[in-house]
Amino acid sequence: MRNPHSNGNLRDGGEATDENGFGHGVILGLDGGATSTVCVCVPYFPFGGDRLPEPLPILGRAVAGCTNRNSVGETAARDSLEQVISEALVRSGSDKSDVRGVCLGVSGVNHPSDQDKIENWIRDMFPSHVKVYVQNDAIVALASGTMGKLHGCVLIAGTGCIAYGFDEDGKEARASGGGPILGDWGSGYGIAAQALTAVIRAHDGRGPQTLLTSTILKALGLTSPDELIGWTYADPSWARIAALVPQVVFCAEAGDEISDKILVDAAEDLALSVKAVVQRLGLCGEDGTASFPVVMVGGVLNAKRKWDIGKEVSKRINRFFPGAQTIIPKVEPAVGAALLAMNFLTS
Amino acid sequence: MRNPHSNGNLRDGGEATDENGFGHGVILGLDGGATSTVCVCVPYFPFGGDRLPEPLPILGRAVAGCTNRNSVGETAARDSLEQVISEALVRSGSDKSDVRGVCLGVSGVNHPSDQDKIENWIRDMFPSHVKVYVQNDAIVALASGTMGKLHGCVLIAGTGCIAYGFDEDGKEARASGGGPILGDWGSGYGIAAQALTAVIRAHDGRGPQTLLTSTILKALGLTSPDELIGWTYADPSWARIAALVPQVVFCAEAGDEISDKILVDAAEDLALSVKAVVQRLGLCGEDGTASFPVVMVGGVLNAKRKWDIGKEVSKRINRFFPGAQTIIPKVEPAVGAALLAMNFLTS
Repeated sequence: MRNPHSNGNLRDGGEATDENGFGHGVILGLDGGATSTVCVCVPYFPFGGDRLPEPLPILGRAVAGCTNRNSVGETAARDSLEQVISEALVRSGSDKSDVRGVCLGVSGVNHPSDQDKIENWIRDMFPSHVKVYVQNDAIVALASGTMGKLHGCVLIAGTGCIAYGFDEDGKEARASGGGPILGDWGSGYGIAAQALTAVIRAHDGRGPQTLLTSTILKALGLTSPDELIGWTYADPSWARIAALVPQVVFCAEAGDEISDKILVDAAEDLALSVKAVVQRLGLCGEDGTASFPVVMVGGVLNAKRKWDIGKEVSKRINRFFPGAQTIIPKVEPAVGAALLAMNFLTS
Repeated sequence: MRNPHSNGNLRDGGEATDENGFGHGVILGLDGGATSTVCVCVPYFPFGGDRLPEPLPILGRAVAGCTNRNSVGETAARDSLEQVISEALVRSGSDKSDVRGVCLGVSGVNHPSDQDKIENWIRDMFPSHVKVYVQNDAIVALASGTMGKLHGCVLIAGTGCIAYGFDEDGKEARASGGGPILGDWGSGYGIAAQALTAVIRAHDGRGPQTLLTSTILKALGLTSPDELIGWTYADPSWARIAALVPQVVFCAEAGDEISDKILVDAAEDLALSVKAVVQRLGLCGEDGTASFPVVMVGGVLNAKRKWDIGKEVSKRINRFFPGAQTIIPKVEPAVGAALLAMNFLTS
């Protein structure tokens, strides 16, 4: 991944603002998710950072199909991008000439060549002075919890999981994010795969009986654990397996020990990922007590259930680092992308 | 999987034999592996069982391409079957009219419809009186260690793993075999995936340093653990990952604690699979000391390295069941299939 701090920044301070503090023009923030793409249009604030209004006013918002070219192909990805940008601009009463900067957050942009390709698509849609940034979704998620500032750590746990962080100098570090084969046990996929394994082990006599068996079979409309093997391999989608996390939480809340252990292990693994990033970047300061944000994103962390995985992770993070401030973002990732663009343009 | 005991058996005892004890005709045994198909032609012995000569004389042997129709398609699979059978018969100086029975062992034949389809292909190649049996490779592997008798337990640990067993009444049970997503940690894939995970954890600061890092990177021609993620997902073949088991054994032999723990855990999980099957079938008798065979098959168990996974598994099995006789088959799976056909024809 390229360090966003090394992108060309533009200092635009000291510009004229209107009575609301708006500068001239707008910023587009885009979130290119696995199933849809969201674009928000926000006013450009020349001061940015701590002086931004909360919540940021949204002038226009649009949703289109997936823009991951690996999933839907180049033409469809590019068409969706064009469409979602045009709609957001129309709804905000703006046009392309008003745009100062665009930031798109996408998952799986780990290679500079991928990033360059998508950046070039967006550049081609706008006049040459418009600044365009394409960033990994982890960086955009961090920005969504820090009002655009790239400092601290973000922990994402949805279908997959990753911990990512930046120190004040723009040095970055990551932990986890290796995907299902490489032991992301705190991810939704990891939690659900362990639950399925527990059902199989109970069934063939290798492990203790668990409430997971009846709960998962019922959720999937199956009658025997033998059918689980066929179900598991019928479709290689990791999200389909990760969708069983609510069943695991249900069983843990009902007192099932196997489910409880799976969730405790997941919380420990996620906290350990944050610890690894924080220690490598020295975010906690020399005495370990410095204050820094930890932005927590994704369905595993923010399910708001009685057995609260996010809360268990926070507790463990604070045991390691009393100065860590865990934050659940109040804005969606597309707004995080807009905040990030604002930060790049004004810093 | 269908119970082979319920297939039509033919009692042919009391026939005339020649001076070597051979009856009239031959038996074909086939092993339909992932990359090739082996066919052996052996003499038909009307008595079978304990009175069979060891080693069984092989009259002819041939090798052809893969006959898994899910891998190569129906036409290619059927052509390879025809070819390998014809060649084995020619080399043994026999022809189709000499064949008494055919048994094919294939992996992944878990559905009666799959089994029926392949059985029908083979039936179409022979006169109607020829007995045809298509069996799961686990059953054929058991037969390869028990001279064709379906009693006891077989443990296969190669890329995948499974424990399978039969009691004297033909009741069957299995454990493990759920594949990579469902926690087959004793399989070659499971061992190697844990080793790769250990490298990633050491690299991002979540786990201790391990000799696995330099050893695996060198074996794969990579320079950094970051490249492992791309390598892992570049090709979804489980066998490609399982091929790293020798590196894990190398590291364990060199004293690497992480590697040692991965192998110990694998040995325990494999022994637990056997234990589950033995207990469900009551193979160990009421007092737990009865004698029964445990046939051990596959690259993970029979690598003959200093750190000997097979020996560690045997040791644990004998701790559970002092009467268990662990057996490494002296004959290849195709001969196991021929022994199985002989057993079906003469029992």
